[in-house]
Amino acid sequence: MDRDWELFLLPYTQTVNELKVKLKGIRTSYQLSKQHGPIEFVTGRVKPVNSILLKSRTRNVSLEKLETEMEDLAGIRIMCPFVEDIYDVVTLLKNRHDFKVVQEKDYVTNKKNSGYRSYHLICEYPVQLIDEVKYVLVEIQIRTLAMNFWASIEHSLNYKYQGEFPHEINLRLQKAAESAFQLDEEMSTIREEIKEAQSNFRFKDGKSSFNRNEWKE
Amino acid sequence: MDRDWELFLLPYTQTVNELKVKLKGIRTSYQLSKQHGPIEFVTGRVKPVNSILLKSRTRNVSLEKLETEMEDLAGIRIMCPFVEDIYDVVTLLKNRHDFKVVQEKDYVTNKKNSGYRSYHLICEYPVQLIDEVKYVLVEIQIRTLAMNFWASIEHSLNYKYQGEFPHEINLRLQKAAESAFQLDEEMSTIREEIKEAQSNFRFKDGKSSFNRNEWKE
Amino acid sequence: MDRDWELFLLPYTQTVNELKVKLKGIRTSYQLSKQHGPIEFVTGRVKPVNSILLKSRTRNVSLEKLETEMEDLAGIRIMCPFVEDIYDVVTLLKNRHDFKVVQEKDYVTNKKNSGYRSYHLICEYPVQLIDEVKYVLVEIQIRTLAMNFWASIEHSLNYKYQGEFPHEINLRLQKAAESAFQLDEEMSTIREEIKEAQSNFRFKDGKSSFNRNEWKE
Amino acid sequence: MDRDWELFLLPYTQTVNELKVKLKGIRTSYQLSKQHGPIEFVTGRVKPVNSILLKSRTRNVSLEKLETEMEDLAGIRIMCPFVEDIYDVVTLLKNRHDFKVVQEKDYVTNKKNSGYRSYHLICEYPVQLIDEVKYVLVEIQIRTLAMNFWASIEHSLNYKYQGEFPHEINLRLQKAAESAFQLDEEMSTIREEIKEAQSNFRFKDGKSSFNRNEWKE
Repeated sequence: MDRDWELFLLPYTQTVNELKVKLKGIRTSYQLSKQHGPIEFVTGRVKPVNSILLKSRTRNVSLEKLETEMEDLAGIRIMCPFVEDIYDVVTLLKNRHDFKVVQEKDYVTNKKNSGYRSYHLICEYPVQLIDEVKYVLVEIQIRTLAMNFWASIEHSLNYKYQGEFPHEINLRLQKAAESAFQLDEEMSTIREEIKEAQSNFRFKDGKSSFNRNEWKE
Repeated sequence: MDRDWELFLLPYTQTVNELKVKLKGIRTSYQLSKQHGPIEFVTGRVKPVNSILLKSRTRNVSLEKLETEMEDLAGIRIMCPFVEDIYDVVTLLKNRHDFKVVQEKDYVTNKKNSGYRSYHLICEYPVQLIDEVKYVLVEIQIRTLAMNFWASIEHSLNYKYQGEFPHEINLRLQKAAESAFQLDEEMSTIREEIKEAQSNFRFKDGKSSFNRNEWKE
Repeated sequence: MDRDWELFLLPYTQTVNELKVKLKGIRTSYQLSKQHGPIEFVTGRVKPVNSILLKSRTRNVSLEKLETEMEDLAGIRIMCPFVEDIYDVVTLLKNRHDFKVVQEKDYVTNKKNSGYRSYHLICEYPVQLIDEVKYVLVEIQIRTLAMNFWASIEHSLNYKYQGEFPHEINLRLQKAAESAFQLDEEMSTIREEIKEAQSNFRFKDGKSSFNRNEWKE
Repeated sequence: MDRDWELFLLPYTQTVNELKVKLKGIRTSYQLSKQHGPIEFVTGRVKPVNSILLKSRTRNVSLEKLETEMEDLAGIRIMCPFVEDIYDVVTLLKNRHDFKVVQEKDYVTNKKNSGYRSYHLICEYPVQLIDEVKYVLVEIQIRTLAMNFWASIEHSLNYKYQGEFPHEINLRLQKAAESAFQLDEEMSTIREEIKEAQSNFRFKDGKSSFNRNEWKE
């Protein structure tokens, strides 16, 4: 099959670009108002062609049905400071009028056997092309920084072992997952303090106290 | 004093912009070659004017001597996947020919009482202005993601309590610092596996396996 | 009046950011498909506060009514290669489903006395904020590169002379406007050739021939 | 030959990225100080692989000698408001300490037969890689907006006709070149007025009057 992948993926690239701008705008809104911001940073990607081909084979998805059956051609990740923020972000996304949540999976409360934790939303986003509106699926993953770190490590090892981890590696991954979970737990106990600290400071001089956001990529 | 701050800070803004491009280029180099990359992501900031004024008062630094005595007017942060990577980055920075390291503080091996961990380099960077070269100081902080997360939480609380944490808060911060440290330790035990996984994968299809970097801000 | 301008202008900043991403996406679509692209580049700005205050005074617009009566708080400029492209862009914008054109002024066919040429659309754009959708006005100016160049010169002189140009200056501006118009005319005679050249080249190797777009800001 | 082009071109990509940040910084410096800025905007590109292969064949440059004999693998374009600004930019670039001008061609004073006008500098730029400094060649083209517009049109037609323009097309291109030249001439007569207008305005409120630069890509 001699598909022009760049052209095929164009609506997905456009969707990722638009959603990144929209969700970063939400982060900025929180910074400017007197509220704790549940969004730490936002990333996005269009699935690389070799990953699409690989997944189409292993999951038995026909290339003709990619648009409806491969839900993560467009992907967005939202990193939150605290576990509780994840649920705030989910609510916020469900209330938006510019796209529709069509499916959700809560791997935060119900972590996968591997140790993986994240909240997944599959959304339908109307993207305006030159002469038509196209409804594309996009997967939004919401997670803490600790969850994100662990997931990237596991993803990396997955390439080597194709999911069949040796016992030793598996053990280490499990322990790392526990440490990540522990860090999130400890952080949560401080969350109310942080939220108050952020509002207070803002109250005084009209600027957010959370200086992480002065630091820009 | 009626300083034109924007004009005064221009060489620092320029320095931050140039160093971000340079260090992100290093990250890309590792991705393209068959090596584990010690740089996860890079951020930068110019110190906000109100922070400069505050620090000048509390540290008793005269506004006339800011350029030589306030070393973090320009700031760069490099986040590393693993603790060991921090030292690799330090070596790499010391070997560069486009700036000079003039001071270093290893708060990774010797963490602060607060629990703060990071490696700091003060560098002298020659920035080309319209009609002269100016040598400006820039502070480069190198840390893991877990160190960074903890530091941002502590920074945020500092604004509220001005460094005088109540015993209860202090206790929680200490426990969070331990969890962050624990996470880094667990991760380190997997580092060699990860490095091998990354090189192997690269070997097969010429692309880095570490997909975190497909995901862009 | 002690307005928090940054907060007030946030929906306009967000609108400008979203529209820039959307319209640049259109430019990319043309590049990837086998068509002449009518969009050369896209810029945007939120009106600076001092310009808002000045205009509110000279046009007698109450600060309470800025949102409905000052139509260019958010501004987008689309630069086209050829005069004919302007009308194609206007049609394209009117057919979109993500905002509504509420007013249009054709200063291309009916140039202003000053020599100013441009096509203006006032649009109503629904921008999703944290917890509501706000409909904001945005002015989209569509013009050729030559029109844009002349306009920027005239704008610059306007600051000095406040619209009361000395006869000599006025004469030179008129002559420059004629040269800009002449350049657009000459270019138009080549437009069909260019369009064909672009499609042909694309046909051969699947890449756009118009290399201006390889060159990125 | 099975070259890893992405890896080969990496130092050139890095050079283009660094020079864009550096030269845009110069533009910002002019905006902040009370001076007319000779730089309107800056773009850059790394030569696409298919263009490299084509040029290597037509110019008879061996692929082994690309680094020393193909001087535009890295390319930077600087657009100036006025013809006179081109020479100011050339002087400014020659006085910099972070790269060296090794060759120059003044196609502004001595335009090519085709009608092409631009000032070309070949520079040697030291780019710091992971473990070495590499000296790469980069071509910097300096031109007015009108010159740039004409050049992009001619470039586009070149793909179709491979330089062998029909008489009719040639005639139109010549006339367009004359219009572009005429526009630059008219503009130059206003340059002193503009420069004064910009300094004056800046004097009053500390902001540049040249609003073109509020408008960002």
